[in-house]
Amino acid sequence: MKFTDRLLEKTLPIWRQNHSHPFVQGIGDGTLDPDKFRFYMVQDYLYLIDYSKVFAIGAVKADDLETMGKFASLLDGTLNTEMALHRSYVKRFGISEQELETAKPSPIVLAYTHYMLHVCQNGTTAEVIAALLPCAWSYWEIGKELNAIPGAADHPLYGDWVRMYSSEEFGELAGWCIELMDKAAEGKPEHELLKLEEIFLNTTRFEYMFWDMANTKQMWPGAETVNVSV
Amino acid sequence: MKFTDRLLEKTLPIWRQNHSHPFVQGIGDGTLDPDKFRFYMVQDYLYLIDYSKVFAIGAVKADDLETMGKFASLLDGTLNTEMALHRSYVKRFGISEQELETAKPSPIVLAYTHYMLHVCQNGTTAEVIAALLPCAWSYWEIGKELNAIPGAADHPLYGDWVRMYSSEEFGELAGWCIELMDKAAEGKPEHELLKLEEIFLNTTRFEYMFWDMANTKQMWPGAETVNVSV
Amino acid sequence: MKFTDRLLEKTLPIWRQNHSHPFVQGIGDGTLDPDKFRFYMVQDYLYLIDYSKVFAIGAVKADDLETMGKFASLLDGTLNTEMALHRSYVKRFGISEQELETAKPSPIVLAYTHYMLHVCQNGTTAEVIAALLPCAWSYWEIGKELNAIPGAADHPLYGDWVRMYSSEEFGELAGWCIELMDKAAEGKPEHELLKLEEIFLNTTRFEYMFWDMANTKQMWPGAETVNVSV
Amino acid sequence: MKFTDRLLEKTLPIWRQNHSHPFVQGIGDGTLDPDKFRFYMVQDYLYLIDYSKVFAIGAVKADDLETMGKFASLLDGTLNTEMALHRSYVKRFGISEQELETAKPSPIVLAYTHYMLHVCQNGTTAEVIAALLPCAWSYWEIGKELNAIPGAADHPLYGDWVRMYSSEEFGELAGWCIELMDKAAEGKPEHELLKLEEIFLNTTRFEYMFWDMANTKQMWPGAETVNVSV
Repeated sequence: MKFTDRLLEKTLPIWRQNHSHPFVQGIGDGTLDPDKFRFYMVQDYLYLIDYSKVFAIGAVKADDLETMGKFASLLDGTLNTEMALHRSYVKRFGISEQELETAKPSPIVLAYTHYMLHVCQNGTTAEVIAALLPCAWSYWEIGKELNAIPGAADHPLYGDWVRMYSSEEFGELAGWCIELMDKAAEGKPEHELLKLEEIFLNTTRFEYMFWDMANTKQMWPGAETVNVSV
Repeated sequence: MKFTDRLLEKTLPIWRQNHSHPFVQGIGDGTLDPDKFRFYMVQDYLYLIDYSKVFAIGAVKADDLETMGKFASLLDGTLNTEMALHRSYVKRFGISEQELETAKPSPIVLAYTHYMLHVCQNGTTAEVIAALLPCAWSYWEIGKELNAIPGAADHPLYGDWVRMYSSEEFGELAGWCIELMDKAAEGKPEHELLKLEEIFLNTTRFEYMFWDMANTKQMWPGAETVNVSV
Repeated sequence: MKFTDRLLEKTLPIWRQNHSHPFVQGIGDGTLDPDKFRFYMVQDYLYLIDYSKVFAIGAVKADDLETMGKFASLLDGTLNTEMALHRSYVKRFGISEQELETAKPSPIVLAYTHYMLHVCQNGTTAEVIAALLPCAWSYWEIGKELNAIPGAADHPLYGDWVRMYSSEEFGELAGWCIELMDKAAEGKPEHELLKLEEIFLNTTRFEYMFWDMANTKQMWPGAETVNVSV
Repeated sequence: MKFTDRLLEKTLPIWRQNHSHPFVQGIGDGTLDPDKFRFYMVQDYLYLIDYSKVFAIGAVKADDLETMGKFASLLDGTLNTEMALHRSYVKRFGISEQELETAKPSPIVLAYTHYMLHVCQNGTTAEVIAALLPCAWSYWEIGKELNAIPGAADHPLYGDWVRMYSSEEFGELAGWCIELMDKAAEGKPEHELLKLEEIFLNTTRFEYMFWDMANTKQMWPGAETVNVSV
């Protein structure tokens, strides 16, 4: 059994919850409130900045030039190409560049990104990949599933999103991550595999919380009117 | 105006919310559901492990021997003395050492600790201290406030907690952190002070979420029955 | 006075020593023993791998998207373009890809790269740039100086090296680093500028030791016949 | 075969060179030039500051409370006890506290400490321990060997050094490091063991260079009169 099969098997209940989340389903059938998607896009943009940093940490941790080069090109691609696409896509929702640049992460985005960042900075290449895998992998699976819904890929608001994450190019990225996970896990003693499993479980859970956060436009609880200009 | 005065002024609304949180008030008037406190103690134990790691990072970051030595003694004191006290205290709530050692952090604990750990590992001594300050400082303020409530320090379940955080010894720790913050902020340009302010704001917010988590015994949302043995 | 002018002024004696080092002069007048250059190229290749990692750390540390994107593109460019050129260039000296991939760093390369890597991983963006600046800046200055020597740029063995480091493209990289240094130093208190100065001084010194190492083909002292297969 | 036996076997030639180094032999037979020892003591003091930081990183990396607590107590002991002893010992050689506090590391000290610091910050607990082991282990072996020389432990200048490193207390520290190395290596695949072997080899080599540096009072080559006040 491949290690990634084991990971999937262990987290299947959450994995299914992610797929069937109302926010995800709403993208697929086109009924999602555009205001919720707007909130999601801004937070996802902030998420991507730190997700890129995880690729940079991957390049620092890598023991061989090939892996290092791949992480470098993912970092460069995300920052210098994908995020430009993101900036252009969000205009459709009335989000200006200035709004993007000054937006603040929600607590779930802070939690998810900083969990990844610390686990990666403190861990091995295998731990880096276990942390970033659920995002890449589940977006690809969700992309493919939604793309199979008639009309989903042509929806005026959400079609681009569906096409991006079901694209061959995105599938290659996800496939590379899966392969690297299996390779990095090879020969490791069981207690290290359990640690990888726990990391994968936690970022899978954070994926769920991310959908939930988007669906409820959840920011910090309590005192909203903090007079901090940061 | 001292930099820590500025920090306090900017976060006062949240600061007040923390003091008036039902969980905190319940410790003070002795009406808190012991089951909630039990949950809190286990999660706080897990939190303290990572809070100690923040002290260790402080020792790595420190530029002078005195600060380094202080962080080292905080780390050693927390791990090799305070956590032993903690283990003895929790027995009163029927929590065994084994339960402590195998407990898993709630999402809020993961979020709060990993936010601190990454910010500290990636930042300067000033950022380390801005991240860890709200916990030390607000516990001291809360300790003193609750200790002023007649009977609070003698409560059979919560009196020890109140005495610990209102103690002179704990006050010295908090005072040292406040002093170090002011010293570390000296002469820094405004954009760096704003960054420190943001870090302090975020961990102050996480303090609030921690009380809230304890009060609702909040674990991961959704699929509870994940078949992962980690 | 720009901060980089101050840096240059303070380290001028070493800076001049680097320019007038016999190894550097030998590249310029074409008299360098090709065997020494061969040794240099292999060690420089190993150096570049870790120098790239410094760019990756820069991307992790960066506070704004523009700086982050620039570090990402330097990392990607170095790893996925320049090092391929390097591999092709060294063939002329009879160095196979396999030799490159299995070569081990000399103690000076280990020292220089790990000094940079730790200072960067532990420091601020300003410290990252202070650490990496002497290499980029001094290579550009040396490149321009050697390129002014008649015939240097056309030398069958060393001409490519001279052209590469005197090229407009390389000058842009060096210029960007200088600019970023000045920007990052702005408004910092004097004790932080002194720390930056010390980092810049140390990597400037390591540049000198690098030339010296290449000139004497210096590996580990003492027991040469260690039976370690690593 | 224990993993530490394998490490010893692989590095035996360098290990023997360290024991038979003129500087080490000079401590044992009491003929060492006090001026060289003076230089050594100042550099060793600077080394110990960063060696302590390696313990702090060990506490950050540790997966269990026992290992974390041990690293914390080594850090605290080194910083808050041993270095005080060091400061008192060096007075005998006319080294003031001020000289210690303003001394600058030699290139070998910078190289050795930053190699360790980066490898540890970037690696696993096993890598942390492989990096720090040669110092602790070889000092204990050297301490015992020199202590067996009649009169060595009573020498007016070097006797304290000999007694410190042959003491039961220091032996316990070394023994703990050896045990932790064997435990951390358990079950790891061969390519990870080779990486540990390489780290251990490199810090063993840096031990040799440290003795050599002390024996020649080696600072930076070239321009000595750098007008930098750092």
